[in-house]
Amino acid sequence: MSVKQANQVPQNIVAAGVATTLQVLISAEEGPNFAMRRFIMQPGGGMPLHTNTVEHEQYVLRGQAQIGIAGQKFQVSAGDVIFIPAGAAHYYQNSGSEPFEFLCLIPNQKDEIKIIDSPFAENFLGS
Amino acid sequence: MSVKQANQVPQNIVAAGVATTLQVLISAEEGPNFAMRRFIMQPGGGMPLHTNTVEHEQYVLRGQAQIGIAGQKFQVSAGDVIFIPAGAAHYYQNSGSEPFEFLCLIPNQKDEIKIIDSPFAENFLGS
Repeated sequence: MSVKQANQVPQNIVAAGVATTLQVLISAEEGPNFAMRRFIMQPGGGMPLHTNTVEHEQYVLRGQAQIGIAGQKFQVSAGDVIFIPAGAAHYYQNSGSEPFEFLCLIPNQKDEIKIIDSPFAENFLGS
Repeated sequence: MSVKQANQVPQNIVAAGVATTLQVLISAEEGPNFAMRRFIMQPGGGMPLHTNTVEHEQYVLRGQAQIGIAGQKFQVSAGDVIFIPAGAAHYYQNSGSEPFEFLCLIPNQKDEIKIIDSPFAENFLGS
């Protein structure tokens, strides 16, 4: 690939999330060192508290969310840059009325996700 | 860092470019495997044809540009995803009336930039 339009990339439902889809914009096969993905979380949607074995580098494209990283809460919106260290417990909750969209890049390393709490509604710190 | 607003990150002038600034959103010190940068090229600005020794994974945030990658031309705008392999000659030219902004992520590896043509106005393939 050289150029593709993100809106034309298939959206996959994220089983561990609520009203959340994932698009693989640049796969681990296309990029030799890291992969670019785009998450879209509909109003009311998000991801419960969980850990990954790889770090996340993120950039918010649209919408608003409350996120939690290692026990700290943040309100994020377009133009916010987020770093989630490997192993840090984190969650996302769309707190706005439009889709919450962000890029999430991860290294080409084996990732293991562990959900800390479920179901969704009880997962969020402070909710 | 956990969260920062991109607009508050210092803009550095890119000496090899024209009317182009670079912000380091997540540095090689902050991210263990790759760095996130944001380029802003004003109308009429851009970067001449050059090579890097590392690949680029990019996402267009705003504006329009003509870019060239390994001899191919593309018109890109918001939501376009660009992969530039290590060593591929490439250039950027803002072809619109607003700033051309994009994220550019690179691995934490030594990068060497080689400008293929200068000055700017003569650099662009097809110009």
